[in-house]
Amino acid sequence: MAKKTGKDKKDTKVKKAKKAVTPASFTEALRAGEGFELTTLDPRSTPAFDGDKVAGEEALAGLGDELAELQERLYAESKADGTRSVLLIIQGMDTSGKGGIMRHVVGAFDPQGVEITSFKAPTAEEKKHPFLWRIRKALPSPGDIGVFDRSHYEDVLIVRVHDLVPRSQWSRRYAQINAFEKEVAEAGTTIIKVMLHISSDEQKARLAERLERPDKHWKFNPGDIDERAHWPAYQEAYQAAIDKCSTEVAPWFVVPADRKWYARLAVTELVLEHLRALDPQWPKADFDVEAEKKRLAQLP
Amino acid sequence: MAKKTGKDKKDTKVKKAKKAVTPASFTEALRAGEGFELTTLDPRSTPAFDGDKVAGEEALAGLGDELAELQERLYAESKADGTRSVLLIIQGMDTSGKGGIMRHVVGAFDPQGVEITSFKAPTAEEKKHPFLWRIRKALPSPGDIGVFDRSHYEDVLIVRVHDLVPRSQWSRRYAQINAFEKEVAEAGTTIIKVMLHISSDEQKARLAERLERPDKHWKFNPGDIDERAHWPAYQEAYQAAIDKCSTEVAPWFVVPADRKWYARLAVTELVLEHLRALDPQWPKADFDVEAEKKRLAQLP
Repeated sequence: MAKKTGKDKKDTKVKKAKKAVTPASFTEALRAGEGFELTTLDPRSTPAFDGDKVAGEEALAGLGDELAELQERLYAESKADGTRSVLLIIQGMDTSGKGGIMRHVVGAFDPQGVEITSFKAPTAEEKKHPFLWRIRKALPSPGDIGVFDRSHYEDVLIVRVHDLVPRSQWSRRYAQINAFEKEVAEAGTTIIKVMLHISSDEQKARLAERLERPDKHWKFNPGDIDERAHWPAYQEAYQAAIDKCSTEVAPWFVVPADRKWYARLAVTELVLEHLRALDPQWPKADFDVEAEKKRLAQLP
Repeated sequence: MAKKTGKDKKDTKVKKAKKAVTPASFTEALRAGEGFELTTLDPRSTPAFDGDKVAGEEALAGLGDELAELQERLYAESKADGTRSVLLIIQGMDTSGKGGIMRHVVGAFDPQGVEITSFKAPTAEEKKHPFLWRIRKALPSPGDIGVFDRSHYEDVLIVRVHDLVPRSQWSRRYAQINAFEKEVAEAGTTIIKVMLHISSDEQKARLAERLERPDKHWKFNPGDIDERAHWPAYQEAYQAAIDKCSTEVAPWFVVPADRKWYARLAVTELVLEHLRALDPQWPKADFDVEAEKKRLAQLP
C-alpha cells in the first residue's frame, strides 16, 4: 500500500463519513433471527448485493483500504490499554470454502494483528478437559482479530451427528456455549459467527473436482464421502445450533456460499461493518510531541 | 484469486519453467559473503533490480501467483509426512520497515501456513532460560513459513550495545547461534536471515514523520530517540553478527531499505527463490482415486 499523504488521509475520512449513513446491510441481511430456517435460504443467492461476480470482486477489492485502517486503529488502541478485539468464527460443511475465506478474506488483513486457530479433532490432552478449554486458550488478545477455522460448534455438530458423547452431554452444551460467548463479549470481544451455507449439489461438484485434479488430491480424504452420507443430520445439527445459539451478543450469520466470490465479499463486509461500529480511535500521544521533535532535531 | 482452470494451470507451469533458468539473482546479489562491509552498501541502492518504484511495485504484484502455488505445495507436502519448512528472520534498526514487511510481504502469503512471532524484550519467565529457549518454541511447523520480527540476534545486538549481560556471555553467543541454526537447517528448515539496512538520515526522517502525524504517534516511543544516539554501536554490532554468523547453511542477506518498495520486492524475491529451490511437489494420492469417484457418484 502506498504511503498516505495528508491529502489522502482527508479523503479517507470523507469516504468514511459517507459510509457511516449507509445501513449496515450485510449484517442485517445475513443475521439469523427468530424463526430462521436454513432450508429456505438459497445457497446461490447474494443477499445485500445486486451485482455479478465481476462487480463482486471489484467491490471486495475496494474495501481493502478502509479495512486496513480500521484494523490498524483497533491494534493501536490496544497499545494504549484498549481491551477490545474481534473473533471471527467460520463454520461450514466440507468444501464450503473455509480455506478460501482464510486465504482471501483473512489474508487481506494485516497478519501482525491476526491469529488463526484451526480446530481439528481434539487431541488426547484436549479430551481430558471440558470442551471449551482449548477454545479459551485461543481467544484473541486485545487489538487482534482472532479467526477460528471450525470452533466449539464442532462439539454440537460432528459430536451430535455421530453421538461422540452421550446426548445428555451434548444437549447441555448449547447453554454452556451461550454463557461462554456472553462472558467473552462482555470482556470486550466482538463475536462474528459465520456459517458458510452450500448446497448438497455444490458439495458433490467440489468433491468431484478434488478427485479430478492431482493438485487437489491432498485435500481429499475418503472420510469426506462417508461424512457426506450424513448430510441431512448435519443440516439438522446446524439448524439446532443456529436456533439455540443465535443470541443478542453473538448472533449467527448464514452466508450463502455456492458462489465463492459472494461468500468472500459477504464475510469481508461483515467484519468491516462490525469494525465500523467499534469505531476505534488513534490513541493520543502519552509524551510531549514538541519536546521530542526538538530532541530528535538536536541529534546528528 | 480466481479458481484456476486446467488451462491456467498449464500456463503457470510454462511460466515456472522459464523462470527456472533465470539465475537466483536476489539471493546472489544480497548475500553477505566473506569480507562484506555494511558501510560500503548504499541503503538507497537496488541490487538485482534496474527499474524504478512503479516497475518495482509491478514486479512485486507479478510474483503473487507463483509464490501462492509454491507455498501451497510446501504446505501440501507436509500433509504427506514432509518435514520441510522456511524460517524468515527480519532484523533492522527502528523504522527500518519491519512492520511494512510483515504487512506487505508476509501479508501476501496464505495466512494458514504462516506463523509470525514478534520478539520483544524478554519476559521475566524468558529471562530464566537460555536465550535460545523462546526461539526454539517459535520454530515453524513442517509445511509452514515461520517469520521472526526480531529474533535471537537481539541477544547480540541491543544486548551487546547496552551490555545487558557481561561481554564474556554475549561474545559466546555467536558460536551458539551458529550451532543452533545448523541444527535447525539440518532438521529441514530453510533459514533466510534479512537485515533491513537503512541510513541514519532516513531513520531521522521516519522518526520525524512519526512525530508529525497523529496517526503515527502510537508507534513512537521517546526511547527510540535514546536508541538513535547509539547508532554507530548498533552498526558495529550488526557488522559483527554478519561477520560471525553469515554461514553456509544460514547466510545473512543485507537488503538496502531506504526505498521501501525495493525492500519489499527484495524480501519477496528472496523467499520465492528459496521456495523454487525447495521445489515442493504435490503429494501423490494415498487412496484409490477411481474407486472414490465411483463412491461419490453413487451418493445422492
